[in-house]
Amino acid sequence: MLYLVGVGPGPGYVTEAAAKALADADCVFYEDYTGPLHLETIRRYAKTEPIRLTRRDLEDESGRAILQCLEKGGRAVLATAGDPMLATAHAAVVAAARRRGHRVEVVPGVSIICAAMSAGCLSVYKLGGVATVTYPRGGVYSRRPYELAEQNIKRGMHTLLLLDVKEDGSFMPPRDAAAVLLELERLEGKGVFKPETPAVLVHRLGWGGGAKYTNLAQIAASDYEGPAVIIIPGVLGPVEEECLQTLR
Amino acid sequence: MLYLVGVGPGPGYVTEAAAKALADADCVFYEDYTGPLHLETIRRYAKTEPIRLTRRDLEDESGRAILQCLEKGGRAVLATAGDPMLATAHAAVVAAARRRGHRVEVVPGVSIICAAMSAGCLSVYKLGGVATVTYPRGGVYSRRPYELAEQNIKRGMHTLLLLDVKEDGSFMPPRDAAAVLLELERLEGKGVFKPETPAVLVHRLGWGGGAKYTNLAQIAASDYEGPAVIIIPGVLGPVEEECLQTLR
Repeated sequence: MLYLVGVGPGPGYVTEAAAKALADADCVFYEDYTGPLHLETIRRYAKTEPIRLTRRDLEDESGRAILQCLEKGGRAVLATAGDPMLATAHAAVVAAARRRGHRVEVVPGVSIICAAMSAGCLSVYKLGGVATVTYPRGGVYSRRPYELAEQNIKRGMHTLLLLDVKEDGSFMPPRDAAAVLLELERLEGKGVFKPETPAVLVHRLGWGGGAKYTNLAQIAASDYEGPAVIIIPGVLGPVEEECLQTLR
Repeated sequence: MLYLVGVGPGPGYVTEAAAKALADADCVFYEDYTGPLHLETIRRYAKTEPIRLTRRDLEDESGRAILQCLEKGGRAVLATAGDPMLATAHAAVVAAARRRGHRVEVVPGVSIICAAMSAGCLSVYKLGGVATVTYPRGGVYSRRPYELAEQNIKRGMHTLLLLDVKEDGSFMPPRDAAAVLLELERLEGKGVFKPETPAVLVHRLGWGGGAKYTNLAQIAASDYEGPAVIIIPGVLGPVEEECLQTLR
């Protein structure tokens, strides 16, 4: 039996169900490349030392170490920071386990997507979609954040942007993300990401950070650290507006 | 100090931070009209008997009982089933407390929005927006679910539909929601909600329910109980497709 366990976006977010899955597991694995994991929390509940898996271990090797544990009849946990299957990030592992006849259960965690919307005073009813701001690969930028924001702005909806993970496993700082968005504007030229475009920055949620109502130029000049989320608000309702004023 | 505490969509989802806020509170309030609350869990952590507030108490009276507790210098908790501020549902209470100089902190919980997407095998990257399916009010249907789904289908994105709460506080069963969607189709006639339209039904998540890959006609003929969420998938990726086949 494999449990995909979400332990939330920071210390203090482990649920009862996640704690129980950790405590009952014969093998505990974790990854910290999709979000920052609080390892001490996992250690507090697990009865064995947690084993770190890289993106390569999970994506290219389908989590071979996990399958070995399952094949011995063990209960295995793969712990991740957010909600484990929300971006279908661990689908290769799930598929490989199921193909070999193992049951898989997802223990949902507090997700940065939902938590960032609520920390940022923005109604989920107006969330128009999620994209990731990435560094250029081979000099080429992913234009998805631009396209999504353009569509959403027309519809009055909010755009939630996750930030890339760097090659060394560290998280893209918000200033780099704002620079990418302003570069996309230079390439596309439709006025979607201007320096004065309002933006809600949610940085290090659950790790002593918080939410800030600002604009892209200020984020580009800031020294906030990742992990972070940038939300480009659509048309604001009076309740959202009032709440955002407290985040200035 | 007022804590808005999300205790998640079912038993077992209380986080460490939520448990601590409940244990430290002088007054514990809860509402169960935005989602089904596991009262025993709250009782397990709270040192005082939790007090139920109605929608009227919170929206029309701005949570007067909560303000009274705060005014006496007490620490108050308002516990809700999902993530407390995600739909800015308790904004009136937050605003009233802040106007009187009280600090407000949100303790995010596992949200049904994110948990339903991941239980339903659907990538949050393709979530095109959230709407609620409501009973007609004075014979008039809200057309928002139809408009949103129509926009999302054009963009290949998923539409997440929450289900209404009835006058008596019970949750709309999925069959009623499917009937409303098919009635909207009769009114609008653009082919968005057909009987054979594929749909992912996530019912009683965390309360012994689960996710099912089906269609609107089958949901309309089903006897599943609420609370539930219906997701109309957009264009499916291969990973989503493979995972959905396990929910047939």
